[in-house]
Amino acid sequence: MMTDIEIADQAEMKPIKEVAEKIGLGEDDIEQYGKYKAKISLPVTAHPDKKHKLVLVTSINPTPAGEGKSTVLVGLGDALNQLGHQTIIAMREPSMGPVFGIKGGATGGGYSQVVPMEDINLHFTGDLHALTSANNTLAALVDNYIMRGNELGLDPRRIIWKRVEDVNDRALRNVVTGLGGLMQGVPRQTGFDITAASELMAILCLSTDLMDLKKRVGRIVVGYTYDKKPVTVAELGFADAITILLKDAIKPNLVQTLDHTPTIIHGGPFANIAHGCNSVLATKAALQLADYTVTESGFGADLGAEKFMDIKRRVLGKNPDAVVIVATVRALEYNGGVALADLKDEHLPELKKGMANLNRHIKNMQRYGVPLVVAINHFVTDTEAEIKLIEDNCKELGVNVVPVDAWAKGGAGTQGLAQEVVRLTDQQSDFHELYSLDATPEEKIRTIATKIYGAKDVEFSRTAKRQLKQFTELGWDKLPVCIAKTQYSFTDDKSQLGAPEGFTFHIRSLVPKLGAGFIVALSGNMMTMPGLSKVPAAVNMTIDKDGKITGLF
Amino acid sequence: MMTDIEIADQAEMKPIKEVAEKIGLGEDDIEQYGKYKAKISLPVTAHPDKKHKLVLVTSINPTPAGEGKSTVLVGLGDALNQLGHQTIIAMREPSMGPVFGIKGGATGGGYSQVVPMEDINLHFTGDLHALTSANNTLAALVDNYIMRGNELGLDPRRIIWKRVEDVNDRALRNVVTGLGGLMQGVPRQTGFDITAASELMAILCLSTDLMDLKKRVGRIVVGYTYDKKPVTVAELGFADAITILLKDAIKPNLVQTLDHTPTIIHGGPFANIAHGCNSVLATKAALQLADYTVTESGFGADLGAEKFMDIKRRVLGKNPDAVVIVATVRALEYNGGVALADLKDEHLPELKKGMANLNRHIKNMQRYGVPLVVAINHFVTDTEAEIKLIEDNCKELGVNVVPVDAWAKGGAGTQGLAQEVVRLTDQQSDFHELYSLDATPEEKIRTIATKIYGAKDVEFSRTAKRQLKQFTELGWDKLPVCIAKTQYSFTDDKSQLGAPEGFTFHIRSLVPKLGAGFIVALSGNMMTMPGLSKVPAAVNMTIDKDGKITGLF
Repeated sequence: MMTDIEIADQAEMKPIKEVAEKIGLGEDDIEQYGKYKAKISLPVTAHPDKKHKLVLVTSINPTPAGEGKSTVLVGLGDALNQLGHQTIIAMREPSMGPVFGIKGGATGGGYSQVVPMEDINLHFTGDLHALTSANNTLAALVDNYIMRGNELGLDPRRIIWKRVEDVNDRALRNVVTGLGGLMQGVPRQTGFDITAASELMAILCLSTDLMDLKKRVGRIVVGYTYDKKPVTVAELGFADAITILLKDAIKPNLVQTLDHTPTIIHGGPFANIAHGCNSVLATKAALQLADYTVTESGFGADLGAEKFMDIKRRVLGKNPDAVVIVATVRALEYNGGVALADLKDEHLPELKKGMANLNRHIKNMQRYGVPLVVAINHFVTDTEAEIKLIEDNCKELGVNVVPVDAWAKGGAGTQGLAQEVVRLTDQQSDFHELYSLDATPEEKIRTIATKIYGAKDVEFSRTAKRQLKQFTELGWDKLPVCIAKTQYSFTDDKSQLGAPEGFTFHIRSLVPKLGAGFIVALSGNMMTMPGLSKVPAAVNMTIDKDGKITGLF
Repeated sequence: MMTDIEIADQAEMKPIKEVAEKIGLGEDDIEQYGKYKAKISLPVTAHPDKKHKLVLVTSINPTPAGEGKSTVLVGLGDALNQLGHQTIIAMREPSMGPVFGIKGGATGGGYSQVVPMEDINLHFTGDLHALTSANNTLAALVDNYIMRGNELGLDPRRIIWKRVEDVNDRALRNVVTGLGGLMQGVPRQTGFDITAASELMAILCLSTDLMDLKKRVGRIVVGYTYDKKPVTVAELGFADAITILLKDAIKPNLVQTLDHTPTIIHGGPFANIAHGCNSVLATKAALQLADYTVTESGFGADLGAEKFMDIKRRVLGKNPDAVVIVATVRALEYNGGVALADLKDEHLPELKKGMANLNRHIKNMQRYGVPLVVAINHFVTDTEAEIKLIEDNCKELGVNVVPVDAWAKGGAGTQGLAQEVVRLTDQQSDFHELYSLDATPEEKIRTIATKIYGAKDVEFSRTAKRQLKQFTELGWDKLPVCIAKTQYSFTDDKSQLGAPEGFTFHIRSLVPKLGAGFIVALSGNMMTMPGLSKVPAAVNMTIDKDGKITGLF
């Protein structure tokens, strides 16, 4: 069997100019980055004769067994186009750090891939690098400000702006900077996050144009004064300089699938430690140019889809017309207690138990009032009895189940899902919000934890309680919340699979992200900088004189 | 008077495709990055009918008065083309960090500029970002290795591989990483350099192809074991992964001057803390495609030109056919003791005194046996008597002086210099090396310090002495040396202007750069990470809704 990279290598890509033309973008509407990548110039002109339908692809909680959400997403886009429904895919751009940690890219798999996959998974068009350097330029300016007189009285112990890198580097989680004496800065304890978790990444993803981005950058709170007043980037006078560094990164990137479906890849916040959705500008561009826009949100529907509905959707100004929840027999059985090594066999009782995970996600999405379908991503070990069990279960919840074979068959293996999606988007949907922005931050967190995660109660740490009070006093209480939580469980404990009940959800601390426009609530022991594994993927990679790579995916 | 950015904004650039065609590169030989930038695919095929002449532009020691070496370089390239001598410019790519510290770009000025100047001075085609992420991925892998068993016994106190950023961030010069407990890495003291000073930047600049780059990456020494044995990247198994991150960065970038002279910009090591020359691959590409290649080296001839002759030239396998030393009346008078504010007036006695600086650079370049010319970059305050004084002085050394007005008149103001350069390159040159690679590192450092800098003696610190012994025992003594020294003086004290004599030069410590293929010798108190000034350029920058920038240059 061929690997993803081998399949991608054999692809015959069309020049990106041709892909752009297909969706009405001429040579002056794009800037090419090589022959097969382009940035889309802003603003994009809407095509009023399009249907502007929006489909959101999400999944059950991820497991080591693999779900293949991106693969289904890409297959669905291809299938819709094959059936004559003009479609653009809008997805997130991968973070490079994890590529060197755990083998695997973020561009789909098999015959449902986006290409050129090596480029997209490495430096791509430089968006994450632009974010990293903008973020760290701001950090250097802040430290320099403290050293050079510090007129506003920024408290070095209360700087909350951290540096970032697109590298999995646990040694940078907690650092002391500014050592070495008088001319080397002011010593203080701080840390690095991964770029995908940065506020600038969230800002890039939620901005509606360059001036909105500048306004958001200006609103960033970098820290507090000795008398605990927040200090923003605008007050320090750095907003324009940081915006200059992001003037190209704000433009969405255009690539294609193996089947030449136009694919806009832009913005890549993680859904566990950030808001997990691609950029508003990218999704908007797709909506303006296509009958059907197929987009994704990160990890399970408890994280990515919740944040899509409660954060991104409010800025986008458009509700999804249909939701696809991706699951696999294997992942559901894993959720039901089967060990990874045993997943090749049929396990009906455990499958039935594991269904609880899917059921909760279904009910959660139904709560928003959006038509939905469950896609079972096919593995060769699946049995008819297993599929039937899932179908029967979902029928009780009024949801259709469609098996798909996106990996091995691409769009051809996903046409059934495409037909169901078209049917759903023709239905009347009746969207309702999970929470009102007028609710307090505490109420918002409680609503998400109890209604979406299924918690019985929420426990706030002493720090978090103090922050809830402080944020309200500062007038930051009307923002949505973005919960940082393990992707593996509905709870804040990654070992609790299935659909636990009666548990208490723990909030450790809050972080104001006024530029992004939300409050981050850190649960459990979530880290905002990943580490590398004992044998990182890096050690098995090779490159030869022609630039041919192995071991990357 | 218009600013550089205003002049550049008014430029009508040609599509980069057309610029490429002019030098025999078809659409398949380049990869476009937008309409006005491209990467040149490797390898480049030589055009055997070309003259392959190489001209090196260098200068006196820089002063706050400004010399305009890049401006003269660009003007010279334009002038040569205007006179019918087919020419390509090969220069370094700017580091982004200093752009936010001190106003000013590195793409020439006035009517002698390379465009698109904003792009080139900011993210350009992402080469420096690729280097940053490759460098820091390696750092993360090394720290992870120590935490995960550390089979080779790497001593955490003896790791010499530092992290880097393309940001002026003095707070990162000395840091403690790995804090926070068992799962957050192994605590150790380390620091960040600026990317332009990194060994990977030197490797990028000195590699002859992708496999040579991989070999060099493998040779990097990241640190020593507890029993003081060096450990290389190849031993750790990370060379391929790091090379993968540099597979595009290794390709030279093509842009154009305001006058459409093809300009290859690639690799940007600083000349004070690194080897200061653009990439061998870029210079080679230009040589293969042009009659005349005009290239530069950083800062004064004591730094950049010496490193060009003694480091880059050995890898390039081609001696310069002529050298241009750029000076200004103002800078020479500043070297003679005139205060910055008084430079608008005529100061013949101080000019005469300041000539000592130019004279030493002339004699140094003559030592290499290469024909040379002095270019006086014109300022409106220059008087005839001042120019005459310089001419008379240089005549005694057998060198012609050509005034140029590259800033205000572009190539038209630089044609006299172009004619003299053509005349010089037609002469027979008789190149001789400053030192043999067989000399010991101590001898090499003494040779550079006494013959080029004019030192009476060299004093090695206790650490440096120990390292000289250690490096010889390890068999690293046949490499050239790269001295890190202030650019403002021949000495290691930046306040000593002119041409000091009888001084002692101090070597603080050595750093092995086996991948780059040289030993760095740190003199005085040279920092490998710059800081920001009290009022950084960043605070005066603006960007509007159309992306128009002010205050950047």
